[in-house]
Amino acid sequence: MDIDKLIVDLKTGKLSDKDFKSELLKTQVQDLGDVVLDLQREARCGIPEVVFAQSKTVEQILVAAERLLEKYDRLLITRIKDSKAIEVMERLAEKGCTYEKDAEVIYKLPPVKSEKTVLILTAGTSDIAVGREAELTCRMFGLTTRMKVDVGVAGLHRLLGISEELLAADCIIVCAGMEGALPSVVGGLVKVPVIAAPVSCGYGTAFSGLTAMLGMLNSCASGLTVVNIDNGFGAGYAAGRILAGK
Amino acid sequence: MDIDKLIVDLKTGKLSDKDFKSELLKTQVQDLGDVVLDLQREARCGIPEVVFAQSKTVEQILVAAERLLEKYDRLLITRIKDSKAIEVMERLAEKGCTYEKDAEVIYKLPPVKSEKTVLILTAGTSDIAVGREAELTCRMFGLTTRMKVDVGVAGLHRLLGISEELLAADCIIVCAGMEGALPSVVGGLVKVPVIAAPVSCGYGTAFSGLTAMLGMLNSCASGLTVVNIDNGFGAGYAAGRILAGK
Amino acid sequence: MDIDKLIVDLKTGKLSDKDFKSELLKTQVQDLGDVVLDLQREARCGIPEVVFAQSKTVEQILVAAERLLEKYDRLLITRIKDSKAIEVMERLAEKGCTYEKDAEVIYKLPPVKSEKTVLILTAGTSDIAVGREAELTCRMFGLTTRMKVDVGVAGLHRLLGISEELLAADCIIVCAGMEGALPSVVGGLVKVPVIAAPVSCGYGTAFSGLTAMLGMLNSCASGLTVVNIDNGFGAGYAAGRILAGK
Amino acid sequence: MDIDKLIVDLKTGKLSDKDFKSELLKTQVQDLGDVVLDLQREARCGIPEVVFAQSKTVEQILVAAERLLEKYDRLLITRIKDSKAIEVMERLAEKGCTYEKDAEVIYKLPPVKSEKTVLILTAGTSDIAVGREAELTCRMFGLTTRMKVDVGVAGLHRLLGISEELLAADCIIVCAGMEGALPSVVGGLVKVPVIAAPVSCGYGTAFSGLTAMLGMLNSCASGLTVVNIDNGFGAGYAAGRILAGK
Amino acid sequence: MDIDKLIVDLKTGKLSDKDFKSELLKTQVQDLGDVVLDLQREARCGIPEVVFAQSKTVEQILVAAERLLEKYDRLLITRIKDSKAIEVMERLAEKGCTYEKDAEVIYKLPPVKSEKTVLILTAGTSDIAVGREAELTCRMFGLTTRMKVDVGVAGLHRLLGISEELLAADCIIVCAGMEGALPSVVGGLVKVPVIAAPVSCGYGTAFSGLTAMLGMLNSCASGLTVVNIDNGFGAGYAAGRILAGK
Amino acid sequence: MDIDKLIVDLKTGKLSDKDFKSELLKTQVQDLGDVVLDLQREARCGIPEVVFAQSKTVEQILVAAERLLEKYDRLLITRIKDSKAIEVMERLAEKGCTYEKDAEVIYKLPPVKSEKTVLILTAGTSDIAVGREAELTCRMFGLTTRMKVDVGVAGLHRLLGISEELLAADCIIVCAGMEGALPSVVGGLVKVPVIAAPVSCGYGTAFSGLTAMLGMLNSCASGLTVVNIDNGFGAGYAAGRILAGK
Amino acid sequence: MDIDKLIVDLKTGKLSDKDFKSELLKTQVQDLGDVVLDLQREARCGIPEVVFAQSKTVEQILVAAERLLEKYDRLLITRIKDSKAIEVMERLAEKGCTYEKDAEVIYKLPPVKSEKTVLILTAGTSDIAVGREAELTCRMFGLTTRMKVDVGVAGLHRLLGISEELLAADCIIVCAGMEGALPSVVGGLVKVPVIAAPVSCGYGTAFSGLTAMLGMLNSCASGLTVVNIDNGFGAGYAAGRILAGK
Amino acid sequence: MDIDKLIVDLKTGKLSDKDFKSELLKTQVQDLGDVVLDLQREARCGIPEVVFAQSKTVEQILVAAERLLEKYDRLLITRIKDSKAIEVMERLAEKGCTYEKDAEVIYKLPPVKSEKTVLILTAGTSDIAVGREAELTCRMFGLTTRMKVDVGVAGLHRLLGISEELLAADCIIVCAGMEGALPSVVGGLVKVPVIAAPVSCGYGTAFSGLTAMLGMLNSCASGLTVVNIDNGFGAGYAAGRILAGK
Repeated sequence: MDIDKLIVDLKTGKLSDKDFKSELLKTQVQDLGDVVLDLQREARCGIPEVVFAQSKTVEQILVAAERLLEKYDRLLITRIKDSKAIEVMERLAEKGCTYEKDAEVIYKLPPVKSEKTVLILTAGTSDIAVGREAELTCRMFGLTTRMKVDVGVAGLHRLLGISEELLAADCIIVCAGMEGALPSVVGGLVKVPVIAAPVSCGYGTAFSGLTAMLGMLNSCASGLTVVNIDNGFGAGYAAGRILAGK
Repeated sequence: MDIDKLIVDLKTGKLSDKDFKSELLKTQVQDLGDVVLDLQREARCGIPEVVFAQSKTVEQILVAAERLLEKYDRLLITRIKDSKAIEVMERLAEKGCTYEKDAEVIYKLPPVKSEKTVLILTAGTSDIAVGREAELTCRMFGLTTRMKVDVGVAGLHRLLGISEELLAADCIIVCAGMEGALPSVVGGLVKVPVIAAPVSCGYGTAFSGLTAMLGMLNSCASGLTVVNIDNGFGAGYAAGRILAGK
Repeated sequence: MDIDKLIVDLKTGKLSDKDFKSELLKTQVQDLGDVVLDLQREARCGIPEVVFAQSKTVEQILVAAERLLEKYDRLLITRIKDSKAIEVMERLAEKGCTYEKDAEVIYKLPPVKSEKTVLILTAGTSDIAVGREAELTCRMFGLTTRMKVDVGVAGLHRLLGISEELLAADCIIVCAGMEGALPSVVGGLVKVPVIAAPVSCGYGTAFSGLTAMLGMLNSCASGLTVVNIDNGFGAGYAAGRILAGK
Repeated sequence: MDIDKLIVDLKTGKLSDKDFKSELLKTQVQDLGDVVLDLQREARCGIPEVVFAQSKTVEQILVAAERLLEKYDRLLITRIKDSKAIEVMERLAEKGCTYEKDAEVIYKLPPVKSEKTVLILTAGTSDIAVGREAELTCRMFGLTTRMKVDVGVAGLHRLLGISEELLAADCIIVCAGMEGALPSVVGGLVKVPVIAAPVSCGYGTAFSGLTAMLGMLNSCASGLTVVNIDNGFGAGYAAGRILAGK
Repeated sequence: MDIDKLIVDLKTGKLSDKDFKSELLKTQVQDLGDVVLDLQREARCGIPEVVFAQSKTVEQILVAAERLLEKYDRLLITRIKDSKAIEVMERLAEKGCTYEKDAEVIYKLPPVKSEKTVLILTAGTSDIAVGREAELTCRMFGLTTRMKVDVGVAGLHRLLGISEELLAADCIIVCAGMEGALPSVVGGLVKVPVIAAPVSCGYGTAFSGLTAMLGMLNSCASGLTVVNIDNGFGAGYAAGRILAGK
Repeated sequence: MDIDKLIVDLKTGKLSDKDFKSELLKTQVQDLGDVVLDLQREARCGIPEVVFAQSKTVEQILVAAERLLEKYDRLLITRIKDSKAIEVMERLAEKGCTYEKDAEVIYKLPPVKSEKTVLILTAGTSDIAVGREAELTCRMFGLTTRMKVDVGVAGLHRLLGISEELLAADCIIVCAGMEGALPSVVGGLVKVPVIAAPVSCGYGTAFSGLTAMLGMLNSCASGLTVVNIDNGFGAGYAAGRILAGK
Repeated sequence: MDIDKLIVDLKTGKLSDKDFKSELLKTQVQDLGDVVLDLQREARCGIPEVVFAQSKTVEQILVAAERLLEKYDRLLITRIKDSKAIEVMERLAEKGCTYEKDAEVIYKLPPVKSEKTVLILTAGTSDIAVGREAELTCRMFGLTTRMKVDVGVAGLHRLLGISEELLAADCIIVCAGMEGALPSVVGGLVKVPVIAAPVSCGYGTAFSGLTAMLGMLNSCASGLTVVNIDNGFGAGYAAGRILAGK
Repeated sequence: MDIDKLIVDLKTGKLSDKDFKSELLKTQVQDLGDVVLDLQREARCGIPEVVFAQSKTVEQILVAAERLLEKYDRLLITRIKDSKAIEVMERLAEKGCTYEKDAEVIYKLPPVKSEKTVLILTAGTSDIAVGREAELTCRMFGLTTRMKVDVGVAGLHRLLGISEELLAADCIIVCAGMEGALPSVVGGLVKVPVIAAPVSCGYGTAFSGLTAMLGMLNSCASGLTVVNIDNGFGAGYAAGRILAGK
């Protein structure tokens, strides 16, 4: 190690105090980098780096994915579409990976290691893909997950019908498009963290999820937090930050 | 009347057929105007012209208001603020008008003449002024009104606690700011017309009611309709169009 | 039934008062659900659930459609495009369904059961698809409909030429893109409810219907209400809420 | 003059051909400036420079105004508000200037010198200030003007009632706020130039005149042109460009 | 004629005064329609109806086009793209029509009948299609046109190099995308009408022409007017309104 | 209690089974309300209702505040400005409440009951008011808080200088205006939950906090969540949801 | 110094290698901080910290200003308005500071130490305040500055009349509001860096400088760069980064 | 030459002084054009005209490219996509041109002639194409370039790990999408010019690079400047303006 060598050189007189400090200055950024890296490596014990495939080539994805599979028992590739996904799966299928077309993810899940439960709700059927991305991200942290779909506020009985699941969850992710009202109702029923994930479904003034997101940011229920539109990964990761290690 | 005179002139030979048609051409626009005016006068039997005070002087408001009070048993002046309102009331108070400061209206109500009931709901206390403008406009049509405030979705029990009122109404106006989710929930519970009135309360990305309005336009409940932000008058007038004469 | 059984158990002493209340608590959400469902079932007497096809697979659409056709004499599938529609029609054509390509709907109409008439107007030929979606939705409620196309304000005589239809309607739906001025003119001519449906035609600053929608929300004619861009279904459903059962 | 001196120096041999061209190069930008200035001076025969007072001090306004009054028989100061206007008028009143508070203009009109007529229409009373700014600007070009207020489309008979004025005008300026529909209707009735001036009245989604402007830009009537919000001066000036010298 | 018959019936006593007025009421809207239609027919002497092909089928376009060609010596079809245009041309080519692919127009020009000249300028090569749509529309009015391309402000010498053309024009249409600065410079050089046509070229914050349009609306040159983005037709039509009949 | 009475009446035969069910139906909404209320009451053990003062009168605020102070050892009033606050403090000061002018809050803090620590960071001095609202809300949950101000990314050493605090926190709230970059950097350094609170400072394209919020929503650090602009209360409440009871 | 003491302790054996590395880890962030700080101190030789007064109290401003005046021969306080400025000047006037009301700055200039010249242009008189903020910021770097006002593109001769100044400058800052076209024309005439500073003057769709900024970002002149609206300070600082030390 | 001939004619008496001035007037615009052209030709010594291929045909591109290659040792064609690029390369490959698919550029580089170094940084891998366009544009000026990719702020150690490169650069271009935070951090570490180039990667509220751009414009680091979204060419050209000739 660099620092070790510098210490030896200092103690053996190869480096004067002044030169030692000068050399130290050059390396400490690197060292700080290592500190940060260590923190991140520790973070990655929960969840190794996730491959964001949107702007990567098949080859770039495979290089990253295969290196990660050598080190870890889990993998998550997000935003990967059909033809790219099929090519990637040709090499990853045999390594235990699964491709989920609608959610545009390839994943290999680790065993569940925490009883802490994330409940993922979707207002409609159009929100399921985002919900699944969130769920699989939670699973990368080893968390327990449950998912309930199509429980939007226009048919309130559907939501009230799952009140037991609502009360049992340690964290709730709510995926909704259109007017994005479901998180407000859920947030008024529970006291655990509620993460709202706006979805780009709908048309016209749905503005590709913007209306849902604005609604969630202005919820009359207190203490909701919001992620970017269609960012199921971010919602799941936020749940992981909240529950991992608990 | 012009037409009457033309007919006389035609029949007495003062006007040739050709001249009659020529004169007719000149007046018929006016006549059409009369037709339109007649239709509107008929409409005004329900509700005479409302004075929109925002860009009028005290004198202009008084001229309009006093002429209307000569003809009708009712009056509504909207968007009239303190100093202007106080000046106007100096002459209108004695004529049975009331000034409601928060709603920025001056009104003289007619007797209720229809059992058709408009239920006005507000999500929070900040929405009451818009709700009142809506209610008073409904009252100008002679409709029965009820108002329930602070029944927003973050405390669902408040809304469910007034389910009888919900089911008894012939038309419901829902005033809400922030995320504007209340109309969606109400729209899923009833089958009568639901008119959503977005309110410019909230801050930041509430965008002065725009977020509420967008939410209402994208409601997952079917068949809601929406009016402009803070347009309680428009919501009440729409209810009048729906229920007046029924 | 659950409640029946609980009552029996309470009266026969199988359940103590306390246990009865406890059991009741567990089921009442479900019960409330039933209440809501009942309300909705009643609502559905007018119009059974409509299938929003945009984000559904052919199989999902068929499952829903065929179940609905078992129970009801009518069906409406909205936002269904060519290839999907053709596949769906392979099984629904024989069941009396029709596919209308431009409006992107599949429908089976019930008999007309109300003389209440909804007049659907379109400003231009580009607005016809939205107008037809509105008309067919009205027909699902059993309402009478009339449709007049291409009566935009730039050629005022076209609108004035149908003044009889305007005055005879019980409710008017106005579909318009570009500047969306037609509802203002219509709203000034009639006193029945006017529902404005903005259409995403035009280019540049038409902003896919947003300009039309903003114009409609700010109409100088009083008491117009507005639905989301291209939401013919919503406009028709709103007319159904207004006229159904009258 | 510079060029005259250069010519003399060239012809007397004081300047070589090369030096003449070099000197010419230095001055010609200035000369071009003169050309442009000449063109503008000619343009200013119709209308001398107008003082835009919004960001000027009283002293700056007076310096400009008094210099202009020395040269010309007319003056227009736009966007000048109360206290500033009162101070300015202390010195300009005696010079034949008039202050019009609502339109925020100070003006001294030249005699009418053209029978070409600009008709200024306003949809409502809130649009009059913008209309007056337009009218006074037209008057600076010596044009004849007529103004008709409160002829908005919600009461169509008002517009049809002035059809003679519509047909007699050489150019029409239409000032409208809210949904800005009036220019579309007017544009469909006449074949002369129609200039649409959006006005920042209304509230909520009127967006301070933006909705009106978008409506005007997307008019279904062909060949309308549009100016900035509240830009009565620009609309009047455009009419001046169209009719001046004709 | 209806009115003639009514007059006869009135004079012969077949109709009472009251019935005459009643019948008159029914027909006058139609009559007014005729008046409006007459005005428009007169307008169409300059330019017959233009076919906006964007949302029309090949068959609809052909029906309109062929009827127009029977009556008029000119035709303009705008916003018609490749496959549609090719099909349409199969029948219109033999009738003297030309298809211009880049401008997405099919046209048959009338002879030039006015020496009034419209100068069409484009800032860059990307603006030529819009410029051509404007030019061809002017030609439909029988106006003389000139077109100068690629004279944007970043190379000022290009614009100054055509100053003679600038000064000779009776009306100038300026097509520009990106920052849309060219109309400001042109507007400061001439006193004839300047119509600014924003173009949807550029990328990023060019916002498909919105930036150019906003720049044009806020020009520091007085009296410019603006049309919708990419609306070459509207700009040409506005020039026609200005110059036709002069 | 209602249900108790119904049970008695059922068992004593006063109510038939059918009537019992009917009565039950009427009350169960209320009962469900109670259930929800219970859940909320439990939630309120952590934090009683907070008074949002923005649209309330002094009297309304005092009624709420004094009722809350009777039941609880803590109070939080948010968004209360000078004159209103001074009036309110006249009665609340003696009850142990403190007014903090910059943060626009009145509060009475409970004892700290959890060692779980929320670290509140602000990028600049302008963000302190929002940060304080967040901190005081956390304190309402009995949480431990630390606050570090002016650690924005333009002087990275300031942030790195508090790395111990960063690593010791159980949850971090980051308040930032302008470009809102601080949460991204913090989110890359820690694995605990990071809540980003955008602040409406800055000018021009800061768009009153919108730019900061958009930046936070698109952070390249994974799993950040975001609240509305200036919503320190929401950020603190979210931290409370995460840490309360742990 | 910490590191010195650690080195001594390492060499004297007070610290083991392991403990030394551990202690080092704790301090190095601080050390890195120092490195960054050093860089900044060096940067500040050119220009010490500038006081952004917008969200600071008079006392906060004075503390910062007086500390800076002890160390440096120059001072710049930006965005300081009347009453605040007057209070601050009560103590700073005697220290050689000047208050410039329109530009909202207080400054004490250093001697000019570089012949590198920044030319500041403003399109109109409304842009002068922003231009002055830019100029004074340049002066803080010891640069030479020139300023030419009111040379906007609508009167091209004004700009061409200062072509010598244009060609002599080492860097040009162009301040413009409305359509922001001036930087495009300037950028096409010179090859030195051109920094465009949009100004929030104008009205309506000027959108408080946004239109000018969008125009500048989409300039057809290559290689312009842009700062935030009204950010004269940023433009001047950018010029300082470009020319300082040259 | 025209001027030469005019001079001869003046001196030989063929032209009177008056006629000479008149003729001069006609030509001087052209002459001014030459002046401007000369300035530009000088500018082009650094970098000849760049071909913006987006809206040009293959033939237009080739005409421009081949003429430029005759005169210059370098060429840059930007925004040229696959099929077009392949066709163009069929003729340009043999002339020493290279096609870089991801950056959508064809280029032929001149030798490096300046040691002034532009450091191009990208926050992520998605920003590389924009970075390369910037780098190649810098190379057209003969500047030295370095590029470091994927040094975004979420992993701060990556940026600190290249601190030597940061301190050695004469100008830094920072390409970043998503929240665009990297320029702020870089701007706080160096005192050379920093040009921020927003990139249209990301999704949802990344708004195709708008969020990144807004963040950069509101950076808390002083003196950053910004170019249009995805405008690597503009960023590189700005660096060329700054460093060329130094």
